[in-house]
Amino acid sequence: MSTANFDDNKPGKVTIYDFILAPYPARLRLALHAKGLHDLVEFKVVNIGKGEHRTPEFKKLNYSASIPVLEFADGTTLSESVAITQYIDNIDNNPILTGKTPLEQGTIHMWTRKVEAEFLDPYIAYFHHSTPGLGPELETYQNNEYGLLQKERGIRGARYIDSILKTRPYIAGDSISMADFTIIAGFIIHSLIGSEIPEDCVTLKAWFEKVKTVPFVKAYYDSREKFLESMSK
Amino acid sequence: MSTANFDDNKPGKVTIYDFILAPYPARLRLALHAKGLHDLVEFKVVNIGKGEHRTPEFKKLNYSASIPVLEFADGTTLSESVAITQYIDNIDNNPILTGKTPLEQGTIHMWTRKVEAEFLDPYIAYFHHSTPGLGPELETYQNNEYGLLQKERGIRGARYIDSILKTRPYIAGDSISMADFTIIAGFIIHSLIGSEIPEDCVTLKAWFEKVKTVPFVKAYYDSREKFLESMSK
Repeated sequence: MSTANFDDNKPGKVTIYDFILAPYPARLRLALHAKGLHDLVEFKVVNIGKGEHRTPEFKKLNYSASIPVLEFADGTTLSESVAITQYIDNIDNNPILTGKTPLEQGTIHMWTRKVEAEFLDPYIAYFHHSTPGLGPELETYQNNEYGLLQKERGIRGARYIDSILKTRPYIAGDSISMADFTIIAGFIIHSLIGSEIPEDCVTLKAWFEKVKTVPFVKAYYDSREKFLESMSK
Repeated sequence: MSTANFDDNKPGKVTIYDFILAPYPARLRLALHAKGLHDLVEFKVVNIGKGEHRTPEFKKLNYSASIPVLEFADGTTLSESVAITQYIDNIDNNPILTGKTPLEQGTIHMWTRKVEAEFLDPYIAYFHHSTPGLGPELETYQNNEYGLLQKERGIRGARYIDSILKTRPYIAGDSISMADFTIIAGFIIHSLIGSEIPEDCVTLKAWFEKVKTVPFVKAYYDSREKFLESMSK
């Protein structure tokens, strides 16, 4: 199997710091499952609900205090989900998530950014500003007015994505890509908040039910379930 | 010259809608100059100071009402600076701005996103929320408290970038990349606001003076000057 070693140019253990329940890093988890790399990395839990991403030790790994972070055996790191996905999708010279042709690459990056800006980021901002978010100790600045405006933007974004998915099977074209993972991340933040995608987004909701049956997406949700079960014990 | 035609797979005229003075689309202008593609596109001015990005016609080109937008002769479009840069840098199979190896690609995307999140985006938010921004007709929601917090974040970000540039010539390594263009965009928003990079960021300021002498960066600044001169006539 060509992926038995994570990356021939970066030998040794690969560690990923993340939190399986969080929306942004879920995108990298999905990519790892899709590329058959999930079982080759060691995951270290950074519980953002406990503020473990804001410790001085973690900030040494990532100035931005965000997850995920990928750490190579030589101590160098990569952060930012999209950047790490770009990397892991190309190490075997067979990109399946970030585009083969230049135009596919541009299109997938465009949709990834658009889904972030119009759907995922607004709901994340709503979560932090207008709900209890990560709790009073971690949410040191909340601006409810700002958060509610972002929620409105996210609702408009959901309807926009719904309209695009009426025209093709996946947001960036005929096959699943990194950009779709950002929509899935949007559903994850919804499930955490307990909020609802607008009822009229029938296509988007049906799309999500369908996409959850894709084997590697199912593998992510299964590992998520397993984690939740282990937490409740 | 291999770049005489913009893209063999997308024949015909390429139009780019942007505004030369704006920070985000400046990144694509820099990429076009670097790739020798600048003179092969037709630019259409979208004056964001006059709200031309928010007309129904423009929103048909780009739901997000943001510039730049690249339009092919067949009417299809690409938007988002990073996505378009990823595309144009790869059409000749000789990427010089977005990375050749998978690790370079990941590293450059990481730094692009980091400079956005820690430096450019915060100052842009400060501009829109805590200065007159694009003027009272376009800035329909201003939140000064939020804007000032973002400015503080941008100042911290400037110091962080300063510390990285002490260790290598460009933010993502030994050669100039898309990620550096995002730092330049940060300087552009500073010059528009009339605000200052913190005085102690000596390395960052020296870096900017040096980078402005890179021929294709100089070409961008020259065309910017020319535009300003034409405006003042």
